[in-house]
Amino acid sequence: MPSEFDRLCVVLVSTRNPLNIGAVARAMSNLGFLRLRVVNPYEASFREARSAVGAAPVLANAEQYKSVAEAVADCSLVVGTTAARHRELHQTLRPLQEGAPLIRKQLRSGGRVALLFGSEKRGLANDDLSHCHWLMHIPTREEHISMNLGQAVAICLYELARGAGKVRSGAQNKAAQRAERLKPATAGELERITSILLDALRTSGYLGQRPVAAKEEKLRRMVRRLNLSIEDAEVWLGILRQMVWKMKPK
Amino acid sequence: MPSEFDRLCVVLVSTRNPLNIGAVARAMSNLGFLRLRVVNPYEASFREARSAVGAAPVLANAEQYKSVAEAVADCSLVVGTTAARHRELHQTLRPLQEGAPLIRKQLRSGGRVALLFGSEKRGLANDDLSHCHWLMHIPTREEHISMNLGQAVAICLYELARGAGKVRSGAQNKAAQRAERLKPATAGELERITSILLDALRTSGYLGQRPVAAKEEKLRRMVRRLNLSIEDAEVWLGILRQMVWKMKPK
Repeated sequence: MPSEFDRLCVVLVSTRNPLNIGAVARAMSNLGFLRLRVVNPYEASFREARSAVGAAPVLANAEQYKSVAEAVADCSLVVGTTAARHRELHQTLRPLQEGAPLIRKQLRSGGRVALLFGSEKRGLANDDLSHCHWLMHIPTREEHISMNLGQAVAICLYELARGAGKVRSGAQNKAAQRAERLKPATAGELERITSILLDALRTSGYLGQRPVAAKEEKLRRMVRRLNLSIEDAEVWLGILRQMVWKMKPK
Repeated sequence: MPSEFDRLCVVLVSTRNPLNIGAVARAMSNLGFLRLRVVNPYEASFREARSAVGAAPVLANAEQYKSVAEAVADCSLVVGTTAARHRELHQTLRPLQEGAPLIRKQLRSGGRVALLFGSEKRGLANDDLSHCHWLMHIPTREEHISMNLGQAVAICLYELARGAGKVRSGAQNKAAQRAERLKPATAGELERITSILLDALRTSGYLGQRPVAAKEEKLRRMVRRLNLSIEDAEVWLGILRQMVWKMKPK
């Protein structure tokens, strides 16, 4: 099992069914991805899943979070999964086969990646999606697009593991080395930029004082599209802080 | 969905759990393989699975057989699946990634293929395996090789569909079109952002009033690294203008 698998977190958001949580953990254990994070699980379900056989270590080590923002804070790439035909999407949507190499590249370069799955009923909410850099879907028949959660996770992890063993070419190595020098900012840093930017927009009068979810989500997506490196994120944070300081009445 | 998918039969041998039969049918329906055959299912389980939601047509059309021999009689290629490390195998064992192209080749040439899955507890018996031309397994961690039946079927069918004429969704096309519409900002727009940003930095006190070439160049490079689209460039320009207006003494 390549050590880079240890940098992928499967994040389950508001999962209801303990059988599904168990099935996800089992597929993870089978395919060599051992880091599970859960956001707002139904408590009873999570307890029940933990007592299930088959993937005990994955479940015992699962980390629990109150919000998506906290669950992905240390990740430099956040990818949401969606069946994708129900609603307008505001982010790039990639089929699994095209998304997986990008995720592997990030893992190889030393970054941590969060792969988000929503609840069985509703999938990921717009607010959850706004934390994602881009979205991914498993190609299915038009007539039946909604997949079982455990099966969807199994297929995604299979595809990620499928290409991982490959021998790297010299050119690829060089690209990996270059990418390592320019590490992407983590989700936590991007969220800090988002909130200071929101502060700046309210202070400047660009946005009203009253929070409007749709506008905040739009801004969060816009910040994710900047593809900031750690170094640049630091500089932009400083710039925004200075402007907010200047704009606030003394 | 390529018509050749219609020549693949998923054959479940002595499956016990109705939830598993339902999960198999659902994955088949998602991925475009609609022919299910069951050999000696536990009667009650099969009845219960038939009443499950989600993949009703696949289950309603499932064919029931008394023996593996009858279930695969009209197939020109019979492939058994196995976790494969428990016992002596007498047939060629291929990882899924190598076996799938051989199955697709057979389907394309007009032949019918049976893909056998055993019971949750014991897998396929030696007698069942003896009906197979060769065997196939999903690569897993040595420490945890036994997969959930529904997940194993989902992964096998995903791999088969993966290399066939891809199942393309309308949503995917639309997202691809949108990504294409997302044209990169021109150098002129980037330079406008750079100069309003410089103005903002001087007004806020982040930079001194006197121009310093090295600092301006650094900022210019930083703006280029943002990879802005035309649309986003427009929004960022508006944001910066508003902040500069707010910061300037009235």
